[in-house]
Amino acid sequence: MDKKLIDNAIRRVPDFPKPGILFYDITGLMLNPDAFRESIDSFCEIIGSRSQKVTAIAGLEARGFIFGGAIAERLGIPFILIRKKGKLPGKTISQDYALEYGTAEIEVQLSDVKQGDNVVLIDDLVATGGTLAAAKKLMEKCGARVDCCLGVIGLPELNFKNALQGTDVITLIDYSGK
Amino acid sequence: MDKKLIDNAIRRVPDFPKPGILFYDITGLMLNPDAFRESIDSFCEIIGSRSQKVTAIAGLEARGFIFGGAIAERLGIPFILIRKKGKLPGKTISQDYALEYGTAEIEVQLSDVKQGDNVVLIDDLVATGGTLAAAKKLMEKCGARVDCCLGVIGLPELNFKNALQGTDVITLIDYSGK
Repeated sequence: MDKKLIDNAIRRVPDFPKPGILFYDITGLMLNPDAFRESIDSFCEIIGSRSQKVTAIAGLEARGFIFGGAIAERLGIPFILIRKKGKLPGKTISQDYALEYGTAEIEVQLSDVKQGDNVVLIDDLVATGGTLAAAKKLMEKCGARVDCCLGVIGLPELNFKNALQGTDVITLIDYSGK
Repeated sequence: MDKKLIDNAIRRVPDFPKPGILFYDITGLMLNPDAFRESIDSFCEIIGSRSQKVTAIAGLEARGFIFGGAIAERLGIPFILIRKKGKLPGKTISQDYALEYGTAEIEVQLSDVKQGDNVVLIDDLVATGGTLAAAKKLMEKCGARVDCCLGVIGLPELNFKNALQGTDVITLIDYSGK
């Protein structure tokens, strides 16, 4: 993987969403076709090298949709949408998770996940791992297994490995939280 | 285009999000790899057949991201994110539009759209065309031209052609609003 190509495309925005936070902005990656393709190629390679066959990709709203859709289309496997509560019709199953202040909930349509599915979860950035851990519980409630979690950017200092113990977390590029 | 393949994959959910509304659920399309690929193939063909060269795709949050990302990656052109207000860092430009009750705002990062860009807008469903019309204004404020608007599903009875006068609106499949 050409890590430098991806790194160069990710913009740094200081003091967003609040003072003192350095925001890694992946919109720059989508604007650079070579870097975006490199990220999709890399994710597809990772998925192809897993020891157990991956049967579906599940993307987290909203930026996980950008990568998840392109990967699922390329690999020809189903793409499952994990959305914020209230946005999916039909029978859904939900899972809450803690935010800095309060809680949030994510949902999936019950019929979208098959018993025995071996699912890859994808989001743009992996920090505390809280949302991905909730997504993992959601998949398990549906009778599926989570093969691994993928992200473009990882912030290991925010301890995502702790929140996702027992599941491989693979990120294309890691940054220090400082 | 195999319209039947796409039509069969779109689920109908009665009384969502409120009683009396028949909701066309495109999550079924993403779960069917053949139908999803057919939709991406069709969008790429449409874009390839435009008389003026398309220089970028802009996707509307959140379901527009699924299609826009896959198309932009396939065509090797930049993908611009149009998001709900407050979610994009850096210098942004915004545009409001009317909802059934009240208004909403969408935003784009100013540096993402180039003067003279010929942009294709994409969303999953085109109904009143209100959000796409706002997105068109947003692109024009940045000095770009909107080549056409694409959607998987069109609901022509909701008059999107009116809201988007002067711009081609191309949908893969149209349904009656009844």
